Amino acid sequence: MSDGRFEKIALIGVGLIGSSIAHAARRVGLADRIVGSARTETTVQKALQLGVIDEGFASPAEAANGADLVMLCAPVGICGAIAAEINAANAFRDGAILTDVGSVKAAIVDDVAPHVPAGVHFVPGHPIAGTEQSGPESGFAELFDNRWCILTPPTGCDPAAVSQLKVFWEKLGCFVQTMSPEHHDLVLAITSHVPHLIAFNIVNTAAHLERVTDQEVIKFSAGGFRDFTRIAASDPTMWRDVFLNNKEAVLEMLGRFSEDLTALQRAIRFGDGDTLYRLFSDARMLRRGIVEAGQDTDAPDFGRRVTGASEPNTDE
Amino acid sequence: MSDGRFEKIALIGVGLIGSSIAHAARRVGLADRIVGSARTETTVQKALQLGVIDEGFASPAEAANGADLVMLCAPVGICGAIAAEINAANAFRDGAILTDVGSVKAAIVDDVAPHVPAGVHFVPGHPIAGTEQSGPESGFAELFDNRWCILTPPTGCDPAAVSQLKVFWEKLGCFVQTMSPEHHDLVLAITSHVPHLIAFNIVNTAAHLERVTDQEVIKFSAGGFRDFTRIAASDPTMWRDVFLNNKEAVLEMLGRFSEDLTALQRAIRFGDGDTLYRLFSDARMLRRGIVEAGQDTDAPDFGRRVTGASEPNTDE
Repeated sequence: MSDGRFEKIALIGVGLIGSSIAHAARRVGLADRIVGSARTETTVQKALQLGVIDEGFASPAEAANGADLVMLCAPVGICGAIAAEINAANAFRDGAILTDVGSVKAAIVDDVAPHVPAGVHFVPGHPIAGTEQSGPESGFAELFDNRWCILTPPTGCDPAAVSQLKVFWEKLGCFVQTMSPEHHDLVLAITSHVPHLIAFNIVNTAAHLERVTDQEVIKFSAGGFRDFTRIAASDPTMWRDVFLNNKEAVLEMLGRFSEDLTALQRAIRFGDGDTLYRLFSDARMLRRGIVEAGQDTDAPDFGRRVTGASEPNTDE
Repeated sequence: MSDGRFEKIALIGVGLIGSSIAHAARRVGLADRIVGSARTETTVQKALQLGVIDEGFASPAEAANGADLVMLCAPVGICGAIAAEINAANAFRDGAILTDVGSVKAAIVDDVAPHVPAGVHFVPGHPIAGTEQSGPESGFAELFDNRWCILTPPTGCDPAAVSQLKVFWEKLGCFVQTMSPEHHDLVLAITSHVPHLIAFNIVNTAAHLERVTDQEVIKFSAGGFRDFTRIAASDPTMWRDVFLNNKEAVLEMLGRFSEDLTALQRAIRFGDGDTLYRLFSDARMLRRGIVEAGQDTDAPDFGRRVTGASEPNTDE
């Protein structure tokens, strides 16, 4: 019977996602003990001070030792090396579940699976939740509420382990769906990776204009640009690894995006208002679906009107 | 002495911007009377019911008659025709200020200026504020608080009229800056027009994938995509007119955006992690400036975590 509970959860990485898992798991009492490791001693100490982890370690192997759930909450690019290190130290407990929270899945499977010993259940995962902030202090218990978590269990994976991890994520607040790693990577390329790439890109385009100053871009950003800058403020290391590890799907989606953009550009150049109107109207429909599915609020302007902005800096 | 007050303000168009101007002007008592017109009788009635306007008219000329401030709050593409209609009816009051709120300025000047009689002061304007919603019911008094409003007074324009309109916008909550129509159009192309075009575009790209369903796009949109759909939900007529009327600047900025995107695409294809990391880190800097300038909050995830999303629809 799956209850989603564990004796000892080891978080390898205690940034935004790792620390939010800890807060959410404590909220509903899913673990007797939560331990963690981080790449710097400063981060370990911060996570301890904030009560994110009960015990902190410098190495993943020490943290993972004896844990019945090991969660890799580190950038995608180093998950393989972490699994290898834990395995080399013989630190995986027999029967433990090993999972991750990475934004790409096929590459994680390729990197991690070779280092998973027999008797350890590797069930890759990805909670579709986040903010643009990073570090242990940015985590909060509600991050996963009403968000989706995708699991990509390999063929032949122990159903009890999958079920136990599924219930764990559900108790953290998520809806859970399983699919293949390859399909996950395709879906996320369009719902997350390409949007982030475009956001990073337009922010840099704006920064390198000769006839428009950075001050002007900043002051007049409320016209739409600021929404792009928020997601472009996300962690550069994490995103570098995402693009290096989901190359094929991202390049496919980017190709389609560019084709479609060229068609819009052409409509603008030739003053084709009917095409523009039709394409803009179509885009509204999908938005409606997202609000209805509870993945966003229909509060105008993301509810910014209630936050009360401070006075802008008028120095130039 | 400019006090920003008017006897009779005529709002030609009472959608998001027009109705917000009315609410904000009433908040600080800037007008003895606010009247308006709209293209449909339904909209006029709604604006009356909501208390947006004191009196409603079917035609712009009737609304403008006797007003000392006439504000064109209609899509950019029809502002010229509206000015012509008011002028043909001899409805402009001598000494009145005529302004607009359009997102492009050079084309508005070309379209409207020929229909402005001597003795009427035409001072084009653009408040950089908005939400993705439209209609008289979407307006609210705080829309302009701490936002910038750009005025583009033509050479030789009466300084007293410019000053009076400047004080009016300041009392609505804005910071006001003047610049040339051409420079406005260039700045807004990058801070608003191209971001909107990109958002419309990626939403449509996502909608036309064969291997990813719309339901998947909707469910997993929290990864970044939903931020694009919000701005892509903006009024299609308004945006069609923006792109038809700011063609040159938009095409220039779009060309630069595509060049930069090609460089990122190439870095992904060849696995150039250093370039990706550097470009992503650069993008963070500009974001910091926007938060410091008060044009956005640094609350994570736009403060969505406090709004409490409803349960997603799990039907497929």
